[in-house]
Amino acid sequence: MSGFLVEPWRLRWEDLDVSQLERTESTFALANGHLGLRGSLDEGEPVSLPGTYLNGFYEAHSLPYAEAGYGYPEAGQTVVNVTDGKVIRLLVEDEPLDMRYGRAHRHHRTLDFRTGVLTRETEWESPTGRRVLVRSQRLVSFTQRSVAAIRYEVTPLAEATQLVVQSDLLANEPIESDTRDPRVALALKAPLAAEFHRAEGHAAVLVHRTRESGLRMAAAMDHEVEANDGVRTEITAEEDLARLTIAADVAAGETLVVTKYLAYGWSGQRSAPALRSQAEAALAGAMQTGWDGLVAEQKAFLDDYWEVADVEIDGDPALQQALRMALFHVIQAGARGETRAIPGKGLTGPGYDGHAFWDSETFVLPVLTYTMPDAARDALLWRHATLDAARERARVLGKSGAAFPWRSINGAECSAYWPAGTAAFHVSADIADAVARYLAATGDEAFDREAATELLVETARLWASLGHHDPHDGFRIDGVTGPDEYTAVVDNNVYTNLMAQKNLREALAACSRHPDVAEELGVTDAEKTVWRQAADRMRVPYDDMLGVHPQAEAFTQHDEWDFENTPEKGYPLLLNYPYFDLYRKQVVKQADLVLALHLRGDAFTPEEKARNFAYYEARTVRDSSLSAGTQAVIAAECNHLDLAYDYLVEAALTDLDDLHGNVKNGLHMASLAGAWQAVVAGLGGMRDHGGQLTFAPRLPAGLDRVSFRMSFRGTRFRVEIVPGKARYHLISGDPVKTAHHGQAIEIGAEVLELEIPEGVRYPAPTQPYGREPRRAAGR
Amino acid sequence: MSGFLVEPWRLRWEDLDVSQLERTESTFALANGHLGLRGSLDEGEPVSLPGTYLNGFYEAHSLPYAEAGYGYPEAGQTVVNVTDGKVIRLLVEDEPLDMRYGRAHRHHRTLDFRTGVLTRETEWESPTGRRVLVRSQRLVSFTQRSVAAIRYEVTPLAEATQLVVQSDLLANEPIESDTRDPRVALALKAPLAAEFHRAEGHAAVLVHRTRESGLRMAAAMDHEVEANDGVRTEITAEEDLARLTIAADVAAGETLVVTKYLAYGWSGQRSAPALRSQAEAALAGAMQTGWDGLVAEQKAFLDDYWEVADVEIDGDPALQQALRMALFHVIQAGARGETRAIPGKGLTGPGYDGHAFWDSETFVLPVLTYTMPDAARDALLWRHATLDAARERARVLGKSGAAFPWRSINGAECSAYWPAGTAAFHVSADIADAVARYLAATGDEAFDREAATELLVETARLWASLGHHDPHDGFRIDGVTGPDEYTAVVDNNVYTNLMAQKNLREALAACSRHPDVAEELGVTDAEKTVWRQAADRMRVPYDDMLGVHPQAEAFTQHDEWDFENTPEKGYPLLLNYPYFDLYRKQVVKQADLVLALHLRGDAFTPEEKARNFAYYEARTVRDSSLSAGTQAVIAAECNHLDLAYDYLVEAALTDLDDLHGNVKNGLHMASLAGAWQAVVAGLGGMRDHGGQLTFAPRLPAGLDRVSFRMSFRGTRFRVEIVPGKARYHLISGDPVKTAHHGQAIEIGAEVLELEIPEGVRYPAPTQPYGREPRRAAGR
Repeated sequence: MSGFLVEPWRLRWEDLDVSQLERTESTFALANGHLGLRGSLDEGEPVSLPGTYLNGFYEAHSLPYAEAGYGYPEAGQTVVNVTDGKVIRLLVEDEPLDMRYGRAHRHHRTLDFRTGVLTRETEWESPTGRRVLVRSQRLVSFTQRSVAAIRYEVTPLAEATQLVVQSDLLANEPIESDTRDPRVALALKAPLAAEFHRAEGHAAVLVHRTRESGLRMAAAMDHEVEANDGVRTEITAEEDLARLTIAADVAAGETLVVTKYLAYGWSGQRSAPALRSQAEAALAGAMQTGWDGLVAEQKAFLDDYWEVADVEIDGDPALQQALRMALFHVIQAGARGETRAIPGKGLTGPGYDGHAFWDSETFVLPVLTYTMPDAARDALLWRHATLDAARERARVLGKSGAAFPWRSINGAECSAYWPAGTAAFHVSADIADAVARYLAATGDEAFDREAATELLVETARLWASLGHHDPHDGFRIDGVTGPDEYTAVVDNNVYTNLMAQKNLREALAACSRHPDVAEELGVTDAEKTVWRQAADRMRVPYDDMLGVHPQAEAFTQHDEWDFENTPEKGYPLLLNYPYFDLYRKQVVKQADLVLALHLRGDAFTPEEKARNFAYYEARTVRDSSLSAGTQAVIAAECNHLDLAYDYLVEAALTDLDDLHGNVKNGLHMASLAGAWQAVVAGLGGMRDHGGQLTFAPRLPAGLDRVSFRMSFRGTRFRVEIVPGKARYHLISGDPVKTAHHGQAIEIGAEVLELEIPEGVRYPAPTQPYGREPRRAAGR
Repeated sequence: MSGFLVEPWRLRWEDLDVSQLERTESTFALANGHLGLRGSLDEGEPVSLPGTYLNGFYEAHSLPYAEAGYGYPEAGQTVVNVTDGKVIRLLVEDEPLDMRYGRAHRHHRTLDFRTGVLTRETEWESPTGRRVLVRSQRLVSFTQRSVAAIRYEVTPLAEATQLVVQSDLLANEPIESDTRDPRVALALKAPLAAEFHRAEGHAAVLVHRTRESGLRMAAAMDHEVEANDGVRTEITAEEDLARLTIAADVAAGETLVVTKYLAYGWSGQRSAPALRSQAEAALAGAMQTGWDGLVAEQKAFLDDYWEVADVEIDGDPALQQALRMALFHVIQAGARGETRAIPGKGLTGPGYDGHAFWDSETFVLPVLTYTMPDAARDALLWRHATLDAARERARVLGKSGAAFPWRSINGAECSAYWPAGTAAFHVSADIADAVARYLAATGDEAFDREAATELLVETARLWASLGHHDPHDGFRIDGVTGPDEYTAVVDNNVYTNLMAQKNLREALAACSRHPDVAEELGVTDAEKTVWRQAADRMRVPYDDMLGVHPQAEAFTQHDEWDFENTPEKGYPLLLNYPYFDLYRKQVVKQADLVLALHLRGDAFTPEEKARNFAYYEARTVRDSSLSAGTQAVIAAECNHLDLAYDYLVEAALTDLDDLHGNVKNGLHMASLAGAWQAVVAGLGGMRDHGGQLTFAPRLPAGLDRVSFRMSFRGTRFRVEIVPGKARYHLISGDPVKTAHHGQAIEIGAEVLELEIPEGVRYPAPTQPYGREPRRAAGR
């Protein structure tokens, strides 16, 4: 029982159970990629984890090592819960509205994916019997990135009632931390040092600075108050609190309406007066637009998004809802990041310390590339902006080019465990892959010249210096870690080597497109020869005896994991078994070779894909949320459509059903994006190898119809899959050349309807004992 | 310039340079395996690192992890500088004797390897011109393990002088710590909590307890004072200080003699009164024996030791001295450990936190096995006593049998970096190897029944559960770390696999010898079959293309290290390059495959040894002090006698010349023991494969004569190598069957003189650029 009501375009929660708050605070989080507000109740308490985040705003702390080593990062970064502006407390006569007391006669919270507004309605009776209806609407503006707004309405239901509303800006809010590291806990106890506060009229501003990282932020609020008569307001400000107090006697059936506008700004450079001004200016803009204007802008933004991004599912309403929620949160994470990272949790919670990983490029950016390409570009510009840190990291590691961090907020490596951090060099190839995908999908010439070529060249240089030519077997990349975190520091990880190969070739292509840029970057013919030879001689191990690709050298010779004797509570394995034993056995946390089958599908035959998928399917435990989406994609390609459907559902419902038990810390952006991949690359069979867009649609028996939308080189179109047939609809723009199951087609003004071929049937793969996916509802 | 004078039986230092103190405090340390006193000056200051250690006495502290993992040890252990009883301060009139002030006319410190007494003579003139001769002698008794004694003599040289001597017991002495970890520093700041103190007459006792580990210790002192007249004494005690003050007016040429007796006791169980009594009883025994008696006992103990252990070198006086110093410190580390560990630094300093490693079994125990076998047995009984901790560790790791710790004081794993700790499972095979060696050398039936069989069975069980049979290539042991710390977490490390093979076979043999013990341990026929098959099918990788054994799977396919571009200050590499890059390249910190060539020489042909040695010699940088001795052994076997001599000298002089720049923290026991190995197993060609003792003596051109002594099954004998010939002398006991260069011989009453065959000449191996050993003096 999910607790959420199933509706196609909304997420609605009616449960009053306070212990379930942790499930809704993340799913009801509002964000625009720059500013994020967790979905806590207006009145601040009860609360699981409050949270207001500014993308890129973090506190630093030292990383402890019982045994230190050369090149270990010394400083960690942790996202900060900044000044909370969403708190609006209510006194009904002298009783504070608190859902733990009194009685709620009606209560729901509803997130509307088309309006981008979170609505809350509570009919509450105080312990002394006063009844009020509280209705709030909250939005974080997609169009004004520094702005959030709340419309808060209170209506006494039975008698004239004295209401007091306290609208706060609250800094250094007490939060509980799960961390075991006392230094992190200390850094986050009261991270913000007050620099300035001021209040006047209905408006106030607070400026703070972090103690260690020295970043500065301003939060400002202003209000419109509507009531029929007798309203008294008072504004105050102190270091960590600004408050507008509104006292009113309101007749039964009349409504006190408070509209609160919030604006934020932060910088590592700008002064307190400058930041104060920045926040106040944003606030003035928001007031000028007004509540109705903000709501209208929000709707228009989302109408445009859904036109290019919507996915329709007939036959599984819960999946329909989950997919729209997924797409809504992906755009919330990425829409307005604007040269900041897209963290693993977006701006929905403090999980992973607010760090960004390769998840962003490999899972989230494909969605943005094909739905809101400017947002994909901006995320890649963040990587470009951190090139100096990545070059410095490569230098410290004795390598050339740029080594992008495994986890970071500001671009510096924050991983304190190198075998699963620094050694996972594939992140740099993943960035190159995302760059190439964006270029192919947009033809963005300016980005190609100004950022893409440099990113491709510097990452290619990393690979050239990481690998070596060996007389035994070609160009080897030894001692690195691939996507699967249950295997580390191995030789010739197939995924890494194939992605590096692509990276090297994309760099060569970029240098051909822009010889002048290449020259500026110091690329010589000799260097290009090195890249070409490395790519051409790239080692890709193969196990002749078993007829499969080992995930890395010798993987298939390792011992099998004893799944039969691993109890359910033994998962996730990393919490119950030592790394040393996980690393040395054939147990896979998440798609690794299978991810190579997707992203470098051009390097495998269909038969190899089928054999490899079956082999790894039997050894993959999905202890990572990065896995199910990719397994859906390859299951679909190998014609295991029921299984693809199961994995699609798992990816889409990861957070709604809290499958990993940690949704409290934020949503899994990569899994939400993975659900899109499961539809588009899985059921739709979309591939973009070499920049060529192709489709191979298939419909699982359990679904009646699937439709998805995309943008490619400015053209928007829709692919619809029904039993036995696929239809290609142009929405806007020029015709697009593509392929349907290998047959060249052009999507133009006329709807194309094409047969879906049968496809080869392979034996059904099996999963490790006890790790089968839940059977999808429609099956 | 070593600063030490070269003498055959003594180590003498005449330098007054205070900055050199750190070199002498470790080399002049006195210990007996139970109690250790660093060679600090009597008057306590100036000092580099004071230190008094009780074997096994440690403080605990938590181990910090920025990213924690399952099975990571949570508690660390650090050796404690216990109550210091060696401090005797002197006031000459009102001037404290301090070598930094006034003027020393004569000063030397001399450690005599035959008497075991450290003598100091200083003729000092105070800043106001008073001249005194101070002579002190210090010993830590080999015969009374809890006891140390100091004879302290002061003679005014020019005029009657008032002397005040303060003889202290000082707890929680301030020390400087090198640690970067604030928790360790805090734990060691004042680790001892006072429990009891008392003083009366000339005697005092202090009892303390560590704050975290809860271990309790007592230190007691008593004194004899000899002076012609007018002596006044006063004794006081407070929590952390007991002091006997002796004031005397001494005429010119007369001598004030103070004899200080010290006794220590510690326990994790016994009460404060019990420990106080224990220390006081030991003190009473020492007083009863008296100074002269202690000195005589010390001499008798060492006479016996040198009869069985002395190594003579003609043609290189510095090497002669260094070898005797090495043997002296090895016996100081191991003589009276009595079921405590032999730490990597013995009891000479706080290096490695006072932990014991595999160094003990692999390098130190062979020396003890063939010179003082009871001490070897006692060290193995420590391992036996920690079997429960090792079984628990194996259980946590999901393995069977016993997994001994990488580093520990009390038997619990303390390594905070698992790839170079927990994963180095070979430590368990090294213990089994030491057990088998001790049994073969002594025929100790009681130990075999009561400890050896259990140790061999439990370690064999570990290997059976660590490896697996693979259809590709036999019994594999994947994902472990061998001796070389510049390569970690690899498959089929040849050293590990061959040592595990031996371990399994030794366990089978033990079960055959003692079927009743085996039955008690639950060994079944099925289990023995598993061991036999694992041993028989053990995977030993071989590189056909290069004709060498890869140190581990794929090692020879890895990239070469760029030695030409590694500056001298880049060493040791681990401080200047990341693990990830060291691990993935063909760079070797210390003998690994070459150590297998020694300890499992029966598994290689002579040609394989020569090819392998040349291959690894070119890639071994000797950043570890565990390497040179083994390289000497195999260089000698491969007939590279000059090189063997160079490495012998390097091993012997590691600490005297402070080659690793860290002798301040204590001596490298394994290197000192490795020097013995370089002589006995290297130049003497001694091997003990399968329990059969054999020799293959050879003399490098630079030396005139080498002679070494051994004990085997109760017989003592001597092997003498001169140009072209070797002589075998019986010292005492029954004749011994052995072999000389493959020819069976018996060492009996008559001296055997045998020709040394020429041997095959192989091309001279090379070392990495800049890492050639220093050419030995005699060459």
